[in-house]
Amino acid sequence: MDNFKFHVYTEIFFGKGEIKNLPDVLKRYGKNVLFSYGGGSIKKNGIYAQVMDLLSSSFNVVEFSDIEPNPSLDSVKRGVQLCRDNDIDVILAVGGGSVIDCTKAVAAARYYEGDPWDLVLDSRKITKALPIVTVLTMAGTGSEMNRGSVITNKEQMLKLGMGAPVTMPQATVIDPTYLYTLPPMQTAAGAVDTISHVLESYFKKGDDAFIQDKIAEAVMITVIKYAPLALEDPQHYAARANLAWASSLALNGLTGNGKSGAWSVHSIEHELSAYYDLTHGVGLAILIPAWLKHILSEDTAEKIATLGINVFRLSDDGDKMSTAKQTIVAMETFFASLGIPMRLSEVGITDEKFEIMAEKAVKYGALKHAYVPLTKEDVVRIYQLCK
Amino acid sequence: MDNFKFHVYTEIFFGKGEIKNLPDVLKRYGKNVLFSYGGGSIKKNGIYAQVMDLLSSSFNVVEFSDIEPNPSLDSVKRGVQLCRDNDIDVILAVGGGSVIDCTKAVAAARYYEGDPWDLVLDSRKITKALPIVTVLTMAGTGSEMNRGSVITNKEQMLKLGMGAPVTMPQATVIDPTYLYTLPPMQTAAGAVDTISHVLESYFKKGDDAFIQDKIAEAVMITVIKYAPLALEDPQHYAARANLAWASSLALNGLTGNGKSGAWSVHSIEHELSAYYDLTHGVGLAILIPAWLKHILSEDTAEKIATLGINVFRLSDDGDKMSTAKQTIVAMETFFASLGIPMRLSEVGITDEKFEIMAEKAVKYGALKHAYVPLTKEDVVRIYQLCK
Repeated sequence: MDNFKFHVYTEIFFGKGEIKNLPDVLKRYGKNVLFSYGGGSIKKNGIYAQVMDLLSSSFNVVEFSDIEPNPSLDSVKRGVQLCRDNDIDVILAVGGGSVIDCTKAVAAARYYEGDPWDLVLDSRKITKALPIVTVLTMAGTGSEMNRGSVITNKEQMLKLGMGAPVTMPQATVIDPTYLYTLPPMQTAAGAVDTISHVLESYFKKGDDAFIQDKIAEAVMITVIKYAPLALEDPQHYAARANLAWASSLALNGLTGNGKSGAWSVHSIEHELSAYYDLTHGVGLAILIPAWLKHILSEDTAEKIATLGINVFRLSDDGDKMSTAKQTIVAMETFFASLGIPMRLSEVGITDEKFEIMAEKAVKYGALKHAYVPLTKEDVVRIYQLCK
Repeated sequence: MDNFKFHVYTEIFFGKGEIKNLPDVLKRYGKNVLFSYGGGSIKKNGIYAQVMDLLSSSFNVVEFSDIEPNPSLDSVKRGVQLCRDNDIDVILAVGGGSVIDCTKAVAAARYYEGDPWDLVLDSRKITKALPIVTVLTMAGTGSEMNRGSVITNKEQMLKLGMGAPVTMPQATVIDPTYLYTLPPMQTAAGAVDTISHVLESYFKKGDDAFIQDKIAEAVMITVIKYAPLALEDPQHYAARANLAWASSLALNGLTGNGKSGAWSVHSIEHELSAYYDLTHGVGLAILIPAWLKHILSEDTAEKIATLGINVFRLSDDGDKMSTAKQTIVAMETFFASLGIPMRLSEVGITDEKFEIMAEKAVKYGALKHAYVPLTKEDVVRIYQLCK
């Protein structure tokens, strides 16, 4: 096991009605609250009204709305301006990963005089951030319990990650009932995103980080059990609760700390969603089986087979290569069962940009340090397997 | 899943050599450090010298030594006096659960004018505590990453838990090489303690807290894999690392939050170690199989069988009662394989105090809220099963 640092200080308020804690939490930081949210679904499902009821009498609430999926640098700049103009003390992000990611970038860029994009390119420049409080309305990204954030620069066609110790939310409300109104595709994409996070860690180097891998398996088993139940009955409380908590635990360091090397699939996917505005979880579902097929070899068969035996309960007949192949089928079948389109052609993506996307994935990812190192040619082949 | 709050703010520095971070961490709080430790094993294995080398030039170090296993109220009072006499800013606890538990009580009682025992009897009286930093030298209790503490009042023959949000360590160094010199019985007892913590949560109420149970299983599988390896080769780094991290994660809320009801075995064990100064993990190893036998019924067979299938890899033949019985045998066999005496008679305990211990376990535990509620008569029977 590699040395690691683990410091997840986010205070989680989990369960139905826990939003009641918001005023007490926010007043620790001040009176001027930037309330960030997305396209307005929180107005339809009542969460916006709940937040305003709780805050309007005691806080100066400034609204920062219309944060888009795959949040853009332009949105970040808009948020920073609002913070400066209104002397904001704390940001309340109500949304999923896009809203929370954008909020993190705003919180950090508030204290940076240059272009916020500098902080994405070099997170070491982040020294200070406004405190962040989040209310989760979509499970999957895990952004509510970690420091990371992914921002899209539309001019440069880049979608890159940033983060620093100070960009972790101070507190997060996770109310499973807030997920009841999610569209099925968002529920499915969130489930895939959760699985993808632990899978990226599972396939980092270092098999003696055993407990990390067992927790990764625990997360995957949970998602495989409950995602179909949430799709079947959107108001299934236990399903929503388990999916939400699984999502937070999937990317807070529990499964990745202590392992070395880099992630494999995310930087390949980020090119798809940067160029085509594809839902991140859909891109991941399409890519993961293709990536597994591409890296399958005598060297990797055992690890892939272990995944299948422990997570998909495949029988262990000793033939690792055969079990590994069954694992990949099981993964693909599970994603498809959630109703996700499993080919790039189904989401309108052709091979036109495979070369440039592969080039960028290799340039901005750390694919040469991946479990199986990947070159531009490897990435092109993975895209081709997804056609 | 029940509503819960999760706030584990301890900063973990994990891995060989991470003690180097101590000066930077301690100086956040001040110059006057109370250095608490136990019977002196850290002088033999070199950790004491390492700590003093790191601190002596920049800090005023006051030593608080000779903290005993099952730390006493008298030790707590001695520590409080040292804090007051020396204007202590921060306490550095170097040890296992006993040293850390004692340190937590000292940190809280420093700011309490009455008898520290009041804080054990009513943790709501804890409003403030000195910051605590720990260096772990024995894995098992999990005290390095939670708020809890168990203190023994020898006059009243009571061993009770206390804890408040402010008694959680601010930072903890976990260096697996520091566990290399542990005596085999301490390694074994720590492994049992870790398993017991997740087992207590596993058998709280609320089976729809599914991910919590899967993480509990992950912890148990890890301990079952690595405890024998650490006993066979005390310098097995991966074994020590996995056992240590499993121990911290076993009792920081990941497996217990979201489930209702009370623990079953710990309050029954605390009477044994209060009356007989027995190693806590040894008492647990003796009691757990007896408790499982006692609660086994048509109602509990499925849960116990699930434990056996998922953790001990028993085959699922559909006969839950038979599988549950095999699970109990597997648990007992595993504990015995670690070299732990598995009968009370082997550790010099007769039935003389069964009645009074059972009475106190019921009085001070919350056994009527346990997975299977336990009366005094139940507890006596469990003790008798251990003779």
